[in-house]
Amino acid sequence: MKQVIKERGSVYGNENSIDLLTNILETLSPTRIFILTDTNTAKYCLPYLLKRVTLLSNAKTLTFQEGEAHKTIETCSEIWNSLSQNGADRNSLLINLGGGVVTDLGGFVASTFKRGIEFINIPTSLLAMVDASVGGKNGVDLGVLKNQIGVIRNPYCVIIDVDFLNSLPKQQITSGFAEMLKHGLIHSEDYWTRVKRFPIANTSEAKELIWESIEIKNNVVEQDPEERGLRKTLNYGHTLGHAIESYFLKNQNKQALLHGEAIAVGMVLTTFISSELSAFPSTKLKEITEVILAHFPKQEFSKNDIEEIIKLLIYDKKNRNGKVLFVLLKGYGDHITDCEVPNALIHKAFDYYKNFEKNI
Amino acid sequence: MKQVIKERGSVYGNENSIDLLTNILETLSPTRIFILTDTNTAKYCLPYLLKRVTLLSNAKTLTFQEGEAHKTIETCSEIWNSLSQNGADRNSLLINLGGGVVTDLGGFVASTFKRGIEFINIPTSLLAMVDASVGGKNGVDLGVLKNQIGVIRNPYCVIIDVDFLNSLPKQQITSGFAEMLKHGLIHSEDYWTRVKRFPIANTSEAKELIWESIEIKNNVVEQDPEERGLRKTLNYGHTLGHAIESYFLKNQNKQALLHGEAIAVGMVLTTFISSELSAFPSTKLKEITEVILAHFPKQEFSKNDIEEIIKLLIYDKKNRNGKVLFVLLKGYGDHITDCEVPNALIHKAFDYYKNFEKNI
Repeated sequence: MKQVIKERGSVYGNENSIDLLTNILETLSPTRIFILTDTNTAKYCLPYLLKRVTLLSNAKTLTFQEGEAHKTIETCSEIWNSLSQNGADRNSLLINLGGGVVTDLGGFVASTFKRGIEFINIPTSLLAMVDASVGGKNGVDLGVLKNQIGVIRNPYCVIIDVDFLNSLPKQQITSGFAEMLKHGLIHSEDYWTRVKRFPIANTSEAKELIWESIEIKNNVVEQDPEERGLRKTLNYGHTLGHAIESYFLKNQNKQALLHGEAIAVGMVLTTFISSELSAFPSTKLKEITEVILAHFPKQEFSKNDIEEIIKLLIYDKKNRNGKVLFVLLKGYGDHITDCEVPNALIHKAFDYYKNFEKNI
Repeated sequence: MKQVIKERGSVYGNENSIDLLTNILETLSPTRIFILTDTNTAKYCLPYLLKRVTLLSNAKTLTFQEGEAHKTIETCSEIWNSLSQNGADRNSLLINLGGGVVTDLGGFVASTFKRGIEFINIPTSLLAMVDASVGGKNGVDLGVLKNQIGVIRNPYCVIIDVDFLNSLPKQQITSGFAEMLKHGLIHSEDYWTRVKRFPIANTSEAKELIWESIEIKNNVVEQDPEERGLRKTLNYGHTLGHAIESYFLKNQNKQALLHGEAIAVGMVLTTFISSELSAFPSTKLKEITEVILAHFPKQEFSKNDIEEIIKLLIYDKKNRNGKVLFVLLKGYGDHITDCEVPNALIHKAFDYYKNFEKNI
């Protein structure tokens, strides 16, 4: 693994990059250090961090209940109050230790506490490593609507240590793998071809693939930090994916999906739409669908489910003037942004997904 | 009145500057327009705005209960939900029409909704005109602690129309006058000498004084938008003033003070401390105290009150490493930042305030 250095938001992924934290803490010299975890990372990741970085022995740990359902403004209020009660000032530091929920929420808490304190992301899930922790987007959900409240502000730095992945259940690795597949689709057939063989069960053998994924994301956000154009491509599959994720979250008859599981469905649907609207090659569509269905169990969608999911599309953050705007592909790494898609075609895409027969 | 033009955050204060809004709306071409008011400005200011700017006839008005007690994250949640339910997208515009509570809270709501939508401030109180609406600071209170949650982000522009002041009770004009007096203290004896004669009962005769106050603030925030040094001087009198304001807000036996009323006490105390610690001339201290007490009724402080107020100082946003850091003056416009002040001297300052006999 290598490292990406910027003025702020540097991403470190060298061997033993966790040890860099000692130097960083000495440079930053914060008045107080807080570590934000959820109940999972407090148990499985915090002891490792405290063992490796002795300077953190006096840090105060703040913990909230794990899960997307707690990525709310109410959780933020609890943490703001805890920071305040524990004497955090503008020169205090917040270290976010966890998956995407912790880095997204913790980044927002830090960016708004006393109008902004410094924070560092230490992603512990594959999803957070290759996606959530890099690029400065942070925030919380509004009801079931994903990431509606937030700002864009880079952390002081991001520290990647793939050893944390050893603590992760397989399903969580697979969830992060969805974003790596997305990076293949929006970047190049070369990376797609290699990343589709990513060893879910043995991530330590695939450090280079993880790092490449981080670099793909990092290059995009450096070119377009404010999401005027290119950065929208990182939303490939997410327009429908987020709506599916929100719908499963609020529907009592459905089991909530992990983010990557919802995005996986979204990518199949959107690649089908791309084959219809922007001439994405149908042989490649078939292969992509096979790869995704080999890793992500097929979800059930009734006609009513689909109609409700389409209704949720109006909350997508890329929309303009009430129009839902998709990112589509003409080929690997060849994208069109701001595409309108007729509802009939979305129904057709769900039909394709439902009727696809695995051929493996 | 004149105008200050920047890339973002331009401040317009010409005659009829409210009419500029039509051009601005045509330039911005937002997908939807929302007007945020509190219950007071919905009644006294909104009809005037809608009459003057016909392009706003289709705007959706969102209203919350007036008063500092509603400057909370819960009010933000209500407004975020209203925006969402009324189809706000990233290209929607929020116009904040009101005093400092509306512009502070509305700026934060806009800066964080879908990671930031455009907003315009139309301050309707003297306090918001000369202070809150200019400079990009926004946010809400955390319990009784003032402005603990927020970000720094400039509005698209600020539109000053002093005709709004005609709708304001005298006590509210006096509250804003406190910030103008502060601008005199931190800027120059020349401005102090003129502004101390500000005609509270006839603001329309004092447009130039108001505009000068805006320019003083604007020059400071342009030089130091992130409050690394110079901008701290705008906090003159606020370290103690905010603590007094918070204490009166939470104490059931005290009537809540207007912001300017609390800052007025804070300025007397801090100018006394300046005379003891940084050789601020004592004759000038006496005159300043007389001017302030001529406009702001003397507040009662018991020994216990003072001790509780001193405890609240630990939440000041300028603090570092548990140390309360004051802005002090050596003379008009001649400031020292980051000064430590012994508690005994704060008690002595309260004694000075309590025992001062008006000599007019």
